[in-house]
Amino acid sequence: MGTRLSKLGVRLRPHMKTAKSAEVAHLACHDHFGGITVSTLAEASFFFEAGFKDIAYAVSMVPGKTHQAARLARAGCRLALLTDDLTTIYKIAKQSEKLGVHFPVSIEINSGGDRGGLHPMDPQLAKIAATITRSSALTFEGLLTHGGHAYNSTSISDIRRAAEDERKSVVTAARRLADRGIVCPVTSVGSTPTATYTQNTSGITEMRPGVYMFGDLAQVDLQCCVTSDIAVTVASTVIGHNKPAGQLLIDAGALALSQDLSPQSVQNTYGRLVDDENLQVIKVNQEHGTVAHLNDSTQFEKYPIGSVVRILPNHICMTAAPYNRMYVIENNTIESMWNRATGW
Amino acid sequence: MGTRLSKLGVRLRPHMKTAKSAEVAHLACHDHFGGITVSTLAEASFFFEAGFKDIAYAVSMVPGKTHQAARLARAGCRLALLTDDLTTIYKIAKQSEKLGVHFPVSIEINSGGDRGGLHPMDPQLAKIAATITRSSALTFEGLLTHGGHAYNSTSISDIRRAAEDERKSVVTAARRLADRGIVCPVTSVGSTPTATYTQNTSGITEMRPGVYMFGDLAQVDLQCCVTSDIAVTVASTVIGHNKPAGQLLIDAGALALSQDLSPQSVQNTYGRLVDDENLQVIKVNQEHGTVAHLNDSTQFEKYPIGSVVRILPNHICMTAAPYNRMYVIENNTIESMWNRATGW
Repeated sequence: MGTRLSKLGVRLRPHMKTAKSAEVAHLACHDHFGGITVSTLAEASFFFEAGFKDIAYAVSMVPGKTHQAARLARAGCRLALLTDDLTTIYKIAKQSEKLGVHFPVSIEINSGGDRGGLHPMDPQLAKIAATITRSSALTFEGLLTHGGHAYNSTSISDIRRAAEDERKSVVTAARRLADRGIVCPVTSVGSTPTATYTQNTSGITEMRPGVYMFGDLAQVDLQCCVTSDIAVTVASTVIGHNKPAGQLLIDAGALALSQDLSPQSVQNTYGRLVDDENLQVIKVNQEHGTVAHLNDSTQFEKYPIGSVVRILPNHICMTAAPYNRMYVIENNTIESMWNRATGW
Repeated sequence: MGTRLSKLGVRLRPHMKTAKSAEVAHLACHDHFGGITVSTLAEASFFFEAGFKDIAYAVSMVPGKTHQAARLARAGCRLALLTDDLTTIYKIAKQSEKLGVHFPVSIEINSGGDRGGLHPMDPQLAKIAATITRSSALTFEGLLTHGGHAYNSTSISDIRRAAEDERKSVVTAARRLADRGIVCPVTSVGSTPTATYTQNTSGITEMRPGVYMFGDLAQVDLQCCVTSDIAVTVASTVIGHNKPAGQLLIDAGALALSQDLSPQSVQNTYGRLVDDENLQVIKVNQEHGTVAHLNDSTQFEKYPIGSVVRILPNHICMTAAPYNRMYVIENNTIESMWNRATGW
C-alpha cells in the first residue's frame, strides 16, 4: 500500500483502528511521513505513548471530549479533530482558547456513505471553515471523507466509482472554499478498497486505509486481497461433534469472532477454517461457534475434539477489536506478543 | 427469579456469563445455595477468586483445558465439567487421575436447540456415564441441557414448549440411566425465558438462567420483562446530526453495543434510547451508531451534538461482555464501580 500510494503521489495516513498495535503502526509507517488515523481517543493516547505524534482522530469531535484531547495536545501530540457542525466547533474553539491548547481541524464531507459529514455543496461548509480559521486555538487542516459505500461493491468498477465519489466530493468542496479564499491544505479520502483500486487521485493529498495491513474474507470478496494474504487468524478448539447435523462445535463464538457479516457476502459466514475454505462458521452464540461443510459432509476424524483450528476472520476490525494482544507466529512458533489498544 | 424457583422446588444456579460480576453474583445467590454457572474458565477463575466455590462450567470440556481446570480444583473449587463425548471424557479422566485432582462431570443433552449434546436416546449416554463413574478422578454429576430454541419463541406458549422439551429430554435420559443402575443426582435445565414460564419442573433439580439479572430488549420481546426492568444501559454521546436522513449519529457502534439482533425481532434494532422507544439504533459501524425515529421525524433540538443518551441493549450478554467494568447509578450519581470478567 505504501508503494502504491507513493506512486499515486498521495500521503499514506494509515488507519490504526484495525491494527490497534504500535508494532504494526511502525511497520505501516516506516516508508511514510509518520502520520496515523485513529477512531477513539483511547487509541490516540495509546499511539501517542508509542511515539506517534501526528494523529488524525477521524470521528466527529464533541465538546465533552475536549479536556481529554487537550491533555494529548499539551503533551506534544499534533491531534487533528473532525467536525461537520458549526455550533460544536465553535464551542470546541472557545474551550481550546480557554485551555490554551491548539488543534488542527478537518471538516467531514459526505461522499456517498450517508453516515456523517456535509454534502460538498452545503452552505455550512464555508461557515465552519471560517469559524475554524478565525479561532486562535484552531487551524483549518482540510477536508476528510470516507466512502463507506465502497464496502457494498460487487465489482472492482463499483469500488472505483466509490473512490471517484470520494475524490469528487472533497475536490468540489475544496474548490468552493478556494472561491472564498480559504486554502485547504489536506484532502483526505479512502479505505482499503478505494485506496487499492483508485485510478485518479487528482486533487487528493492523503489516503487512510487500514484493513490492508491484515486482510480478511470481506476483502477477499472485494478482490482487495487473496485468502493467503490474510495475516490474522483466531485459534480455537473443537469442543464438540454434532454428528446428526454434520457440524463441528468450536469454542470461538460471537465474542471471539464477532458477528460481522460482509455486506456483499452471499454466504452467512462468520469466518472459515484456514485449511478448508468449505468449512465455514455458519452460526455464533456467545462462546460457541458452529462450523459446517458447505458442499460435503464434515470429516470428523480430521478435526477430533480437542484439536485446534485456525479461523480466518470475516471482518478483521470487528474480530480483533476486543483482544488486548496478538501473538506473532513464525514457523508455527510464537515469536512475540504485541499489545493492542482497547476500549474508549 | 430466586423466589420463583424456590416455589417450583428447584435450585437456582445462576449463569454468570451475562453479569460477569462478583457483586451481581452475590445478589443473585444471596437466598440460594451459592452454586453458579460460567461459560469460560476465565470466568471460573474470576468467580472462584471472589469466593464462589461451586461452579459449573457449562461448555464442553476438552483435554487441552484440564491443566487450567486442575489449578482451580486443587485450590479448592468444586468445578463441574460438561461433556457429550466418550473419548474426550476418557482422556480427561486419565489426565485428572495423573494430576490427582477431582471433578464432578455432567453430560450434555440436546433438548431441541441442536447445538451440542446427546439425544436422550443416544446409546453413547450410558457409556459416557459409566466411564465417568468408573474413574477415580471423576464423579457423575448428572444431566444438563439448554433449550436455546426458546429464544426463537414468538409466544409464551412457545417458551413453555421449549421448557417442556428441556424437562422431557433430561427426565428421559435420567430414566434410561436409572434402568442401568446409574443414579443422576442433578438434572439441570433452563434459560431466562424457560425459567420464567415453565409450569412443570417434575424431575428437574436445577435451573441456570442468567439474563434475568438485567433484562434487555430481546427479553422484552419474549415477554420475560418490561422495558423499565432493564438494568443496564450504554451511555453514549450524540456526535452528529444527519439532517437529510433524519438520523442522529452516536459514538456507540458495533463494539459498544454489539451487533446482536434478537432472533424474533421484527425490527433490525441494535438498541433504543431510554427516553424514546421509537428512537432506535438501526445501524452500527465500528465506532458509529445510527439512530433513527421509527415513525416520525427526529427532534434534533432534543438531542444536541454533545448530549449524552442512554441506550437500552438488545442483547445484554453480547453488549456487556467486552466491558471490564460497569458503573452503578443511583439517583443519577455513580455510586460504585463493579469489575467484570473478560476474555478466556
